[in-house]
Amino acid sequence: MNLKRLSRQIEFLVEIDRLKNIIRQNLLVDGSKQENSAEHSWHLAVLAIVLAEHAKAPVNLLRVLKMILVHDLVEIDAGDTYCYDVEGNKSKLEREKKAADRIFSLLPGDQAAELRSLWDEFEARQSVDAIFASSLDRFHPLLNNFRSGGIMWRRHGIKKGQVYERNSPMEEGSPALWEYAESLIKEAVSNGWIGE
Amino acid sequence: MNLKRLSRQIEFLVEIDRLKNIIRQNLLVDGSKQENSAEHSWHLAVLAIVLAEHAKAPVNLLRVLKMILVHDLVEIDAGDTYCYDVEGNKSKLEREKKAADRIFSLLPGDQAAELRSLWDEFEARQSVDAIFASSLDRFHPLLNNFRSGGIMWRRHGIKKGQVYERNSPMEEGSPALWEYAESLIKEAVSNGWIGE
Repeated sequence: MNLKRLSRQIEFLVEIDRLKNIIRQNLLVDGSKQENSAEHSWHLAVLAIVLAEHAKAPVNLLRVLKMILVHDLVEIDAGDTYCYDVEGNKSKLEREKKAADRIFSLLPGDQAAELRSLWDEFEARQSVDAIFASSLDRFHPLLNNFRSGGIMWRRHGIKKGQVYERNSPMEEGSPALWEYAESLIKEAVSNGWIGE
Repeated sequence: MNLKRLSRQIEFLVEIDRLKNIIRQNLLVDGSKQENSAEHSWHLAVLAIVLAEHAKAPVNLLRVLKMILVHDLVEIDAGDTYCYDVEGNKSKLEREKKAADRIFSLLPGDQAAELRSLWDEFEARQSVDAIFASSLDRFHPLLNNFRSGGIMWRRHGIKKGQVYERNSPMEEGSPALWEYAESLIKEAVSNGWIGE
């Protein structure tokens, strides 16, 4: 056993436990509590397994899963930035890059480089895998918001234009998911959950 | 878009949101709350990515990740059975098989068959991939318990013999992780967190 290498891996794995305390602007489907980013990352990974066939172009599922499982780790330092928070989103990338510098470098160099590179790829939506992963990352909160009665859209006074701007890029990764998502948005608008 | 197929997939994905309310006998490392099974599944998946090199025999990481990401879904119906609950463990497999019958069959047939088969394989520890996944499933709570000060071992009055019986099979999947785990157990015993 290479104890020094294993110890670095363990310190990273202990540090990321903190993702379970990062609270998102999303309720569970039953409305019982707000979701945290670890729960979201797990759910998103299962979405990838089940919905991979709907990707616009064939994806490498292992790369997609790795990307998804680490995509929110930066929130340990940078916090969750609500997708409709205009001010917060101005500084988001800078804050998250700084977090990525610290968190991934807890790992041995080769693994730090691999996971950091996957995170950069995801953020930049530079590849077929990243575009699909990012489409799922838009689809999941939309589905959860819809199924929990749109409470978070109503609480934050979200309008149709904002939801289209945020979610229509989903089509690049999966036209099928975007078609489905658009039907949910229309129903949410007609229910008064999303403003006109 | 095959709407009927997508709708079945979505119903499964909405149903499994409930895993976020299944509470385990494990604290977060910072002691702030008990972990739920969705958080545990996410953490375990990242462990698999980072620690795969320590598997006794080379594993197929994609299969390991799929197994891990769905291994606890049965708890939605069957609840989490604490590993040191003797009575609960007598009926565990039967309760969980019934849950697997219901939950995986929400999916389209081909996907239901694939994920159910991976779950059966994990439970039976029938393959190199399943043995490694199962070793991680033992290692993760041990690490979390140790790093959170052994509170849950103390609360439940857990003894050294129980911890060895539960965790020593870890060696079949990863001698390196078992060596590391054994050092934690010894320290926890010497700290009085685990009884002699």
